[in-house]
Amino acid sequence: MDNLKIIRGGVCAPVGFSAASVRVGIKKSAPSTKKDLTIIVSEADCVAAAVFTSNKVKGAPITVSKAHLESDKSAIRAIIANSGNANTCNANGVQIAEDACGVAAKSLKIRKEQVLIASTGVIGQSMTIDPFANGLPVLADELAHSAAAASDVAHAIMTTDTVKKEISLEFEVGGVTAHIGGCCKGSGMINPNMATLLVFVTTDVNIRSDVLQNILTHVTKKTFNRVSIDGDTSTNDTVFVLANGLAANEPITDANSEYAHTFYVALFEVMLNLAEAVAADGEGATKLITCRVYNAPDGEVADKVAKSVVSSNLLKAAIFAADANWGRILCAIGNADADFPSDNIDVIITSLSGGVGICKASGGIPFDEDEAARVLSEKEITIAVNLNSGEADGLAFGCDLTYDYVKINAEYRT
Amino acid sequence: MDNLKIIRGGVCAPVGFSAASVRVGIKKSAPSTKKDLTIIVSEADCVAAAVFTSNKVKGAPITVSKAHLESDKSAIRAIIANSGNANTCNANGVQIAEDACGVAAKSLKIRKEQVLIASTGVIGQSMTIDPFANGLPVLADELAHSAAAASDVAHAIMTTDTVKKEISLEFEVGGVTAHIGGCCKGSGMINPNMATLLVFVTTDVNIRSDVLQNILTHVTKKTFNRVSIDGDTSTNDTVFVLANGLAANEPITDANSEYAHTFYVALFEVMLNLAEAVAADGEGATKLITCRVYNAPDGEVADKVAKSVVSSNLLKAAIFAADANWGRILCAIGNADADFPSDNIDVIITSLSGGVGICKASGGIPFDEDEAARVLSEKEITIAVNLNSGEADGLAFGCDLTYDYVKINAEYRT
Repeated sequence: MDNLKIIRGGVCAPVGFSAASVRVGIKKSAPSTKKDLTIIVSEADCVAAAVFTSNKVKGAPITVSKAHLESDKSAIRAIIANSGNANTCNANGVQIAEDACGVAAKSLKIRKEQVLIASTGVIGQSMTIDPFANGLPVLADELAHSAAAASDVAHAIMTTDTVKKEISLEFEVGGVTAHIGGCCKGSGMINPNMATLLVFVTTDVNIRSDVLQNILTHVTKKTFNRVSIDGDTSTNDTVFVLANGLAANEPITDANSEYAHTFYVALFEVMLNLAEAVAADGEGATKLITCRVYNAPDGEVADKVAKSVVSSNLLKAAIFAADANWGRILCAIGNADADFPSDNIDVIITSLSGGVGICKASGGIPFDEDEAARVLSEKEITIAVNLNSGEADGLAFGCDLTYDYVKINAEYRT
Repeated sequence: MDNLKIIRGGVCAPVGFSAASVRVGIKKSAPSTKKDLTIIVSEADCVAAAVFTSNKVKGAPITVSKAHLESDKSAIRAIIANSGNANTCNANGVQIAEDACGVAAKSLKIRKEQVLIASTGVIGQSMTIDPFANGLPVLADELAHSAAAASDVAHAIMTTDTVKKEISLEFEVGGVTAHIGGCCKGSGMINPNMATLLVFVTTDVNIRSDVLQNILTHVTKKTFNRVSIDGDTSTNDTVFVLANGLAANEPITDANSEYAHTFYVALFEVMLNLAEAVAADGEGATKLITCRVYNAPDGEVADKVAKSVVSSNLLKAAIFAADANWGRILCAIGNADADFPSDNIDVIITSLSGGVGICKASGGIPFDEDEAARVLSEKEITIAVNLNSGEADGLAFGCDLTYDYVKINAEYRT
């Protein structure tokens, strides 16, 4: 962290990136001030990396973005995104997404293959090119390299999110100053109807395409893939990273080099911060639950145990009620799809209010229920699980399960 | 079904089985009339088959029952069960479970290895032998071969269940009349803190031990393993089947014989009925959701797709709101861990109020929203998914996700 400094500016913090957002009315139920179409533009060609949903049903924007990445992975110039309609399971969805990129390209005087696209909203709702045709030329005229413009991007992609999620950092690589900025939306990491998770990261670092993709894949596994809100994986999950090289550092061409590691750490911090923000803003959530697993046989086991804990509906409901129901924690640990001894597990719960050991050697121990309830009444709770069976650590993020989760999802489409 | 007749009597319907139940106060928060300790006894030695939880953290009763089954699989005489405490993650849990079997054995004048035990309730709550020592001798004196005694068993094992779950059938096998009866509890199939699902089936059919286990394993896969309430697998899930042979049919010794098939069908009907009852009584549930998958590449794919649909929190919340949110259904289908084409899927929702096609070739189609809402307002809803990519069918059961699920699980331990 020593080399990282938090700065303002979001996705416009890196040199050469600008953005603009507008309300075109795709997200119908929203207030008239809610912007729902946005664009991020780099003045120079970018190498781009991406990660998409594992769901077999994929949104049309993913099909189009994949094709554009294949044809022009080192000359991407823009990302366009809308909220309010996922453009998924629509017969003419691919055509609309392709045409939208074309409109943006024409306005920006670039090729349409240089444009990536992402959409979030209701699945299977019909859509036309009109909002894109009307909105994108306006956006091209309003591009600004400013913190306000970046903040608008973070706002424009929100659906059921309750808070804007963005961060930007400055770091030094090879003697030059570089910048990285990111924003995301997602109030279920994995949450179909909203077409869920969109993450856009910009950087002015100079890095080779394959190294960028390699680092992004690793960092995604260690950040967003550790988040679980509700176990549903969206059709539209998308992470884009654009790197325009304007920091003019010596190019990072080796994934194992010191400079690659420097960038890895910067990207990791951006994505970890955004992932935590997504977990804390899980639909209806009142608490961020972090599970840290220690002394596992290996890292994969540790991560699986951590994910199993934060994914348990029963445990999530208990945490909502500030109930130190350690039996549910042990049960969730035992449900992890991994091999480890289950008879010597310790569990400690911690928060700003302190820490309480609630399980030792997989058995109950006396503890102060009032103190445990105080610990669990905080907004950010960590469940520390010691498997006592190795040396590897793991981590996962989630949130509590509340009445409001049901309310939000029972009423979302209407 | 032609050979099956529904009769009264539950687990006491088969010849030679009796039962008794009593309140010993293990389930503290319950009203004083709630029985919480029960016994099922056969007057003749039984061959026994069992299926236990896949959770790596297992209740002490499972450890003890497994040992008894290994030593005496063809001479089991009794099942004892309690609600209110899962006897799991207790340091002296195995000793207590073993001693409880010993008390029952002494009262019944049999060996303790002839007794199986199951417990359901809070995990990690300390326990003593006292309620068993006090209650089991009383039960041994009060055994009755009656429908009322069987009904009491079904009541005594309930935790958050809202309705008693039992069924019994008469059927003919090899020219003689045989009987089968079953009861279960579970308001989350898979639901840790309650130590969830207990299923007890009795039959007077004459069947060899290995054939019984073989059939039970298959039937469990096609019935209870198709139920999902909340994705949490309990530490104490247990299915016991006892067969005492008193129907005096020619012994069933070949799993592929006609008589084995006859028994398979009878056991399947009992377990399917109980599994549906569990799904319909899912914690907080207002609706039974059945997903039927047609024309899948193979049966495993079909079952995985069906299970994925009924397991989606988002879809379950939409069904609670009677919202024909077919995008969530497509998304849940796409999340199934199976290979199949995702671009030609049809979805129809049906209930007593009719049927409405809501998705064709993986895309939206116009449908009457009011009619769809009427269909989804019924208590029992079927989501029919046509994958159009093969000839295999699949099935799964679940329930909607409601405010009450959160309420029940936020407050369960208190």
